[in-house]
Amino acid sequence: MRLIVLLSDFGWKDGYAGILKGVIWTIAPGVQISDLTHEIAPQDILQGALTLGRAAPYFPAGTIFLAVVDPGVGASRRAIAARIAEQYFIAPDNGLITLALEEAVRKGQPVEVVHLNRPQFWLPSVSKVFHGRDIFAPVAAALANGTPLIDLGERIQDPVRLKFAVPARIECGWRGEIIHIDAFGNLATNLRSEHLQGRGQVEVHIGHERIPHLVQAFGEGAPGQLVTLIDSSGALAVSAVNGCAERVLAAHFGDPVEVWFVT
Amino acid sequence: MRLIVLLSDFGWKDGYAGILKGVIWTIAPGVQISDLTHEIAPQDILQGALTLGRAAPYFPAGTIFLAVVDPGVGASRRAIAARIAEQYFIAPDNGLITLALEEAVRKGQPVEVVHLNRPQFWLPSVSKVFHGRDIFAPVAAALANGTPLIDLGERIQDPVRLKFAVPARIECGWRGEIIHIDAFGNLATNLRSEHLQGRGQVEVHIGHERIPHLVQAFGEGAPGQLVTLIDSSGALAVSAVNGCAERVLAAHFGDPVEVWFVT
Amino acid sequence: MRLIVLLSDFGWKDGYAGILKGVIWTIAPGVQISDLTHEIAPQDILQGALTLGRAAPYFPAGTIFLAVVDPGVGASRRAIAARIAEQYFIAPDNGLITLALEEAVRKGQPVEVVHLNRPQFWLPSVSKVFHGRDIFAPVAAALANGTPLIDLGERIQDPVRLKFAVPARIECGWRGEIIHIDAFGNLATNLRSEHLQGRGQVEVHIGHERIPHLVQAFGEGAPGQLVTLIDSSGALAVSAVNGCAERVLAAHFGDPVEVWFVT
Repeated sequence: MRLIVLLSDFGWKDGYAGILKGVIWTIAPGVQISDLTHEIAPQDILQGALTLGRAAPYFPAGTIFLAVVDPGVGASRRAIAARIAEQYFIAPDNGLITLALEEAVRKGQPVEVVHLNRPQFWLPSVSKVFHGRDIFAPVAAALANGTPLIDLGERIQDPVRLKFAVPARIECGWRGEIIHIDAFGNLATNLRSEHLQGRGQVEVHIGHERIPHLVQAFGEGAPGQLVTLIDSSGALAVSAVNGCAERVLAAHFGDPVEVWFVT
Repeated sequence: MRLIVLLSDFGWKDGYAGILKGVIWTIAPGVQISDLTHEIAPQDILQGALTLGRAAPYFPAGTIFLAVVDPGVGASRRAIAARIAEQYFIAPDNGLITLALEEAVRKGQPVEVVHLNRPQFWLPSVSKVFHGRDIFAPVAAALANGTPLIDLGERIQDPVRLKFAVPARIECGWRGEIIHIDAFGNLATNLRSEHLQGRGQVEVHIGHERIPHLVQAFGEGAPGQLVTLIDSSGALAVSAVNGCAERVLAAHFGDPVEVWFVT
Repeated sequence: MRLIVLLSDFGWKDGYAGILKGVIWTIAPGVQISDLTHEIAPQDILQGALTLGRAAPYFPAGTIFLAVVDPGVGASRRAIAARIAEQYFIAPDNGLITLALEEAVRKGQPVEVVHLNRPQFWLPSVSKVFHGRDIFAPVAAALANGTPLIDLGERIQDPVRLKFAVPARIECGWRGEIIHIDAFGNLATNLRSEHLQGRGQVEVHIGHERIPHLVQAFGEGAPGQLVTLIDSSGALAVSAVNGCAERVLAAHFGDPVEVWFVT
């Protein structure tokens, strides 16, 4: 089985994601296609990169990720395809694959990136406004059909990487920020379990709230109570028990969150 | 073909449902995975149970349903898998499978439920906040690969069952309530065609509205007119012709609805 | 591979689209099913027809489109299936397939339409309110299993066709209107690249705004700036650079848009 997984900011309503699938199946009949999400906020490359980075490790070796959050379509940004460890990524060169890249570099796994500059692998007519359909989808289909990565374009060494905000050491702990708010209103931060290791009790401070200790699971505490925990991606997160922390705290992406070591 | 069907309250935007698929395909490559819905309202076990119960009969024998609406994740609630008639269900033990269970009991069909307590079928590392990914998805993949249900855990006799509101007999008919509001704004009640059988003309009363007779199809009546009909699941429902009864009536889940026998 | 592609106004939350898939797989196990969109606005046949018409050309020969936007369900409208060039369409006879039909007629491609009036291809019990489940899905499965189109019903010559608004010649150019607003807020019109051919500079007028020239891609211009371009379907569209033209212009479906030839 060859598996192509789609991520985009297209939403569902206009059928754009469906069109990508039509293009792929025209070139690579029978390939398995799956949606990771099409509800990345419009042009939000950072959320696209985080969502892709969190999900990719759970997919099998050989998976081809086709990620299109592409405010620069038709302008000078490159289109790229990459083999990172045992998976493939096709995307505009705007940092969408940053997390997968950095993880592989950290682990010493092989990385190979090509600039998609060979029109023989694209649709015959290329619109300046929908490279997902006209370039990325046909290239994904070619990969699924067994075309070697290196045939699809020229090798490059400098794919764009996003700079993610890095937590800062403060006197009593760490200061980070909210990097993701999920559909349940859970607030994930760039603070991770590593920032807490070997520490006793901690307090999390967000806005005017002091959340006195870590719980293990969402359901620990009274309904509505604010809790803090290590979420399923290893991030320190703030949640409201059976509720919506985003609303309770009027929280936004980028808001500061501090963890204090109190013992 | 082995088919796994997903239902959850994850929404689409965060890619959580996509992650379940990655886990399944890593363990059971090539299995067919389909989405029933991921838009159950957060933690709304009752709507999850109703949506699952309405849809399951339309899927083939052998289908594996993976249902995750799980406010109790990481706490003491059990994880279960069940064979109900000729289909399989994997879910937290919170009542999500109530309708399928009750239907099978009513029909005298075989039911077998196990407590998922054998970590060898889970991901190696289990988060306390995402059992969908770490327990339910790998167990679904094991079932799809042919692992017998009984190998996955210990047999239990007491899965949690939800209590659904039951219509009450009133002098002139029945009093029920709204149990589902769909995307068109149709108001489905717990009154069913059985409650009307052998009766002549009926009137439906909801809020201050009196809806004088049953129609057969949504389009019978003037645009905007309130009508009442037996919907595709056999429930008495209130609709607005080519409109949205939910908005017209400012209706909510749980609102009372009466049917009066007028002849 | 046989591929069935779904389009509807069902939304995701109620699982109705999932039920169609269950019905199809019960009759035609293993067939590939894909979602084009289920977020057509309720009963909006025109948007359904446009979305289907734009997407169909990108799907392979042999694809079976199952389109359900069906305000007339249960009333007198016919159910139809059509072979149009090398693809199949199953839908209520309300104009949903207009664009595919007209394209085929224009190109002299074969068209064959049947009235679905043979209950042996439907579910045994047919609700008056959900023909998608009870008629269209089983018919799609029968087609996927190889049943010839002509066996499914009686041939007809007069499928319903929608009348789309046609641009009008005005002194200085053309007057058209907005026919689609996508999830990014891009405003597509019924003016097409053909209306501009051979012309020098053009100006687009919408509301009180004058947009002085065409760009090639969304990213040309300062963030927020209004631009006009030929979109990926060949339509003249108005966009805001990295923004939402719909909101900036408070634009609606049907609003007039003029293109002026200024040289």
